[in-house]
Amino acid sequence: MRAIKVALIGTKFMGKAHANAYRQARAFFSPPILPVLYLACGTNAKETLEFAEKFGFARYTTNWEEALGPEIDLVDISAPNDLHAPIAIAAARAKKAVFCEKPLARNLDEAKEMLRAVEEAGVPHMVCFNYRFFPAIQLAKKLISDGALGEIRQFHTLYLQDWGLRPGLPLTWRFQRDKAGSGALGDTAVHIVDLARFLVGEIAEVTGMLTTFIPERPLPQGGMGKVTVDDAAAFLARFKSGATGIFETSRVALGRKNFMHLELNGTRGSLYWNAEDPNWLWLYSLDDPPHLRGFRRILVTEAEHPYAKNWWPTGHILGYEHSFVHAVVELLSAIHEGRKPSPSFVDGVRAQAVLEAVLLSEGSRRWEKVPD
Amino acid sequence: MRAIKVALIGTKFMGKAHANAYRQARAFFSPPILPVLYLACGTNAKETLEFAEKFGFARYTTNWEEALGPEIDLVDISAPNDLHAPIAIAAARAKKAVFCEKPLARNLDEAKEMLRAVEEAGVPHMVCFNYRFFPAIQLAKKLISDGALGEIRQFHTLYLQDWGLRPGLPLTWRFQRDKAGSGALGDTAVHIVDLARFLVGEIAEVTGMLTTFIPERPLPQGGMGKVTVDDAAAFLARFKSGATGIFETSRVALGRKNFMHLELNGTRGSLYWNAEDPNWLWLYSLDDPPHLRGFRRILVTEAEHPYAKNWWPTGHILGYEHSFVHAVVELLSAIHEGRKPSPSFVDGVRAQAVLEAVLLSEGSRRWEKVPD
Amino acid sequence: MRAIKVALIGTKFMGKAHANAYRQARAFFSPPILPVLYLACGTNAKETLEFAEKFGFARYTTNWEEALGPEIDLVDISAPNDLHAPIAIAAARAKKAVFCEKPLARNLDEAKEMLRAVEEAGVPHMVCFNYRFFPAIQLAKKLISDGALGEIRQFHTLYLQDWGLRPGLPLTWRFQRDKAGSGALGDTAVHIVDLARFLVGEIAEVTGMLTTFIPERPLPQGGMGKVTVDDAAAFLARFKSGATGIFETSRVALGRKNFMHLELNGTRGSLYWNAEDPNWLWLYSLDDPPHLRGFRRILVTEAEHPYAKNWWPTGHILGYEHSFVHAVVELLSAIHEGRKPSPSFVDGVRAQAVLEAVLLSEGSRRWEKVPD
Amino acid sequence: MRAIKVALIGTKFMGKAHANAYRQARAFFSPPILPVLYLACGTNAKETLEFAEKFGFARYTTNWEEALGPEIDLVDISAPNDLHAPIAIAAARAKKAVFCEKPLARNLDEAKEMLRAVEEAGVPHMVCFNYRFFPAIQLAKKLISDGALGEIRQFHTLYLQDWGLRPGLPLTWRFQRDKAGSGALGDTAVHIVDLARFLVGEIAEVTGMLTTFIPERPLPQGGMGKVTVDDAAAFLARFKSGATGIFETSRVALGRKNFMHLELNGTRGSLYWNAEDPNWLWLYSLDDPPHLRGFRRILVTEAEHPYAKNWWPTGHILGYEHSFVHAVVELLSAIHEGRKPSPSFVDGVRAQAVLEAVLLSEGSRRWEKVPD
Repeated sequence: MRAIKVALIGTKFMGKAHANAYRQARAFFSPPILPVLYLACGTNAKETLEFAEKFGFARYTTNWEEALGPEIDLVDISAPNDLHAPIAIAAARAKKAVFCEKPLARNLDEAKEMLRAVEEAGVPHMVCFNYRFFPAIQLAKKLISDGALGEIRQFHTLYLQDWGLRPGLPLTWRFQRDKAGSGALGDTAVHIVDLARFLVGEIAEVTGMLTTFIPERPLPQGGMGKVTVDDAAAFLARFKSGATGIFETSRVALGRKNFMHLELNGTRGSLYWNAEDPNWLWLYSLDDPPHLRGFRRILVTEAEHPYAKNWWPTGHILGYEHSFVHAVVELLSAIHEGRKPSPSFVDGVRAQAVLEAVLLSEGSRRWEKVPD
Repeated sequence: MRAIKVALIGTKFMGKAHANAYRQARAFFSPPILPVLYLACGTNAKETLEFAEKFGFARYTTNWEEALGPEIDLVDISAPNDLHAPIAIAAARAKKAVFCEKPLARNLDEAKEMLRAVEEAGVPHMVCFNYRFFPAIQLAKKLISDGALGEIRQFHTLYLQDWGLRPGLPLTWRFQRDKAGSGALGDTAVHIVDLARFLVGEIAEVTGMLTTFIPERPLPQGGMGKVTVDDAAAFLARFKSGATGIFETSRVALGRKNFMHLELNGTRGSLYWNAEDPNWLWLYSLDDPPHLRGFRRILVTEAEHPYAKNWWPTGHILGYEHSFVHAVVELLSAIHEGRKPSPSFVDGVRAQAVLEAVLLSEGSRRWEKVPD
Repeated sequence: MRAIKVALIGTKFMGKAHANAYRQARAFFSPPILPVLYLACGTNAKETLEFAEKFGFARYTTNWEEALGPEIDLVDISAPNDLHAPIAIAAARAKKAVFCEKPLARNLDEAKEMLRAVEEAGVPHMVCFNYRFFPAIQLAKKLISDGALGEIRQFHTLYLQDWGLRPGLPLTWRFQRDKAGSGALGDTAVHIVDLARFLVGEIAEVTGMLTTFIPERPLPQGGMGKVTVDDAAAFLARFKSGATGIFETSRVALGRKNFMHLELNGTRGSLYWNAEDPNWLWLYSLDDPPHLRGFRRILVTEAEHPYAKNWWPTGHILGYEHSFVHAVVELLSAIHEGRKPSPSFVDGVRAQAVLEAVLLSEGSRRWEKVPD
Repeated sequence: MRAIKVALIGTKFMGKAHANAYRQARAFFSPPILPVLYLACGTNAKETLEFAEKFGFARYTTNWEEALGPEIDLVDISAPNDLHAPIAIAAARAKKAVFCEKPLARNLDEAKEMLRAVEEAGVPHMVCFNYRFFPAIQLAKKLISDGALGEIRQFHTLYLQDWGLRPGLPLTWRFQRDKAGSGALGDTAVHIVDLARFLVGEIAEVTGMLTTFIPERPLPQGGMGKVTVDDAAAFLARFKSGATGIFETSRVALGRKNFMHLELNGTRGSLYWNAEDPNWLWLYSLDDPPHLRGFRRILVTEAEHPYAKNWWPTGHILGYEHSFVHAVVELLSAIHEGRKPSPSFVDGVRAQAVLEAVLLSEGSRRWEKVPD
């Protein structure tokens, strides 16, 4: 069986999630290509070694350019946003497959440059919009594709967290526009933008607002530094299909931890889902008899459901990390089958274009078209 | 249109619920017989007058025997349990229709005596098991009768409250066996026993336990008095149909206010319901496609649902008190149609027989048959 | 005790809710002024008579000008929106107290004219924003006023219904701009605008979108007529306080019946509430120990809670209609105490100003200031 | 660092869960002893090889006696119930540490024999009651130990599944008394018995009922075979502390998948939890102000919560399998520290004694003491 050697850049939250995903894909999914955890790359040598040992990487480094070495097949970018473009472009030129965390880039231009690089190099590329890979979201997608909801008319989504309120939280890269591109918009809203595109279709235009509630945060070196990104973002949208959308995200919504909530209302049915209870899909259907209609709470762990058979029997729930495993399975399957993985950098660019339009609209105080 | 004059005995929680029910039945249901609030009877003259004025009774008294006067058509017994038998029997002999709060009596013998009296007198009789009259319960009943759940195999129910924990709560009649007959068993479990009979059928045998967690409570006159009834009761049951049942009730289950929860599992479907959220019925059905099965949350306020059309448009919820209104509508309709109201004293006796078997079993520490 | 004679104009959904409210206020709240149901006014004589009999009105009419007669003290406007202004202004001139359903008017100018009329006449005036009067909303208000949530930063609200999808629904006045002023915006969004003002404060500016998904509906006389109002509306808002708001409403959101959902995030706590489960308030508080924080589900039926003591013991839930009873209690109490009822026509005007800004913004495709 | 070589016997549901647990413990918990997946043992050679490859075992076999070889340190018994005793006893004699799936044995005698063997051999022993190791259950335990709930008075628990209803389900070992010992009682009730002991304490006496709703099931070789175990079991219990308990389990409760629900009511607080939503703990506390009391829904994923820090940031949920990882961490830590792992075979025996009393009571139709 074919194996591919993975260089994983990033060893924090996302690095851990990705490392775990390759291992678990192998143990639970018999992927057609075996991912080999070859090179772990982090900023701190001691921590990177520890990380490499825990997850069983063959080697480790603090120099990401080692990921461009001839023995590497796949470069996995789980590093901060400002490194996405340089690494992805270098990896593409070195003819590596590229798997990149979201948001694809700090802005639309950068994202397009990355897409150009992977397309010119003809290498497989995928962006890790992991939320697509929750079984309930896959089931939702299938229902929509099958027409079970009719025409989608309204889409509402909130993605609320409150970690931004933690006392004494320092001014990390996530609060700096030059490193992160934007704040909650690029960090969390990008997920719901992608899900909107996945489930409803392309967005035509938006009008939005960005808010920074906490203007200064402690600098690691002492003193306070200016926050240059948004703590919260909200926008209205019109889809090309005529559907309407409402989006909101925040990292300072007290009490909400990873509250990504989405609801779709169609002409034949409606559904909603929440990432804090991701095993459940709620479905309302006009197919039910009138006196027995109601949102039904489907525990998406049956053998009939996406991915479920590979894990545990009915009713034994999956967690957050499983979405990454499924994403890796898609990546490996697509490479094996010689087709483009999905979502690809094209999806990364399209999501970025929506964020760009929101930022424009914040400045112009008008509706803005999503750029092509 | 025919009118009947009502004498209502009791002006506290239940008296208020009944008085309101007659009025609202009239305003919202165009009942075929008009209930006239004629005589209110309480223990305290000043309070009874006030009560009578608020609800529009023509007269008031502190002597319940006035309810036997020739002008009265219907005697409504919302008084403490030890008064149920004397009033009901006297009312029957005076040829009044009788509407009695639950539990019908303090014990099975008393209940049977009451049944005998109303049957001998040939008067209409009804026991106020108001929970049958929540729209969701009526819908559940219909589903079961229509076979939508298949054969019912398992019935689980809890009825938990915590008012018994209120600091300084005095030793009222509800804590005294001679006045109340039993504690949580007769007060709250009787409701779930009735719903079990209504939805599943007759209970054949039981084994139970009664517990008094708080053995003494303050006397109104000072000092402490002994609690002679149960704070909590639980029992296992076998229905005549072969179904099994689990029942539990408590008045000291901290945090639970009026938590009457019931679940039925059948061979074709299952449902559950809770009195703290009574407008919602949860239904699981094998009729749904396998990958879309789940408990569906039906908001029982549609025009297609029992009673709903008489109140508000879809989605505007009803409260606790509405169940009494519907009970009164049944009472008035049955009298008008010359049929027996349901649930009748027969149902009161059958529920009492189950309580009796639980009490027996507590003593014998064995399964006990429910007496005929 | 003082009594006031009520002329109620409108006998449909709102007429029924108001008639019931006066009666129940009297029975459950011992209001300082007794409301007397004196005159019922509807469009159909037979139906109005029936309505009058059911609720116990002394008289009925099909001519609303009879409400201006000298024997009337209070004119209650539960008629379609285009009648609000003429009736209110006439009633004010005839020196009647005026209680008007929402939205106060079809547009801001009309609303201001009404306010001018009642102020010039010096009569008591109140607009029936009944949602303020759910016990959970009153509790929320108290918590906010007491500072328990800190500074409110974010407010999100949805008000979704689906009655607009009912097949064959005719082109009633609710779908016509000249009669209704707007569609879901004025009908349902106005409630959440009022709650936003009640709980968070004045809105400074908005940007919105209105959508008509179903452009034609059957005419009563046959054929199809054009829908001239919105089926759905959404807007972003900035409050004067700096808080942000997201509002959405729809009458075509399949599966949602009376789903008014609101959430507030503050610096010390957050809360949410839903009108389909109105007895429950969810509260998150930084006052809880860090490892025990979570949204707590408060059943707002305790003796300590607003209005609860007047109804039933703990845990016995209230319904939709009770909010109107509490509104009437406020109206009667304010009149008795010689203070302005709240919410008054001033609140009606302020809510209308927000709707006006949304409509403006729909045209200009920009943010618009809420007019003074 | 010390490593221990694991022989895992069983490659189905539980084998997979255990194999995964050792790997994940290593990657996420830096255990003080490294578990080495050395030998996988199954009944089918091809499947066992595949299993071994997926999880990275060094060797595989179809003969469990190879687990007794000198290179093995720990024998993990994830095989059917009738193999627990022979393997555990042989492993103990061969001086291996033993980690055994629940129920410890088919009956109390067998369980005691196993305990005797491990104690005589002086080897570490643990029974895999994995539900103890959900973070929410650990948090619950801590709250109870700290006295936050006061004295526990009432414990209610249901464990409902419906896989027994799957059409055509063959008569596997789980339906045969000689192989399984009992049905739902030993398979699922044993988990809630263990949690009852863990959270509330020892059970003194019980009265129960066992029911077989489906008396025959298809034999693999064709024709039908008799089911000799229970499909459902229920019992009442009195704890030594005076608390009461209600237990029910079923494998034929339509619509319930892995619905293990438990509620405890104490004198200072109450809590509940459900295995279908295992990241959430619901807590009610008298410490809250009276008007703000309610069950609070704690998302047990904060850094302050058990195990959470080793996984993902706040709000990113864990699944079923993580409980096994935590159990393995306890096993490895205890071995390293030279203390007894918990829960040990002693707990396995005590749980078995409760099941034994339920079986006795089913025969005698009386309350039965839990044997010592």
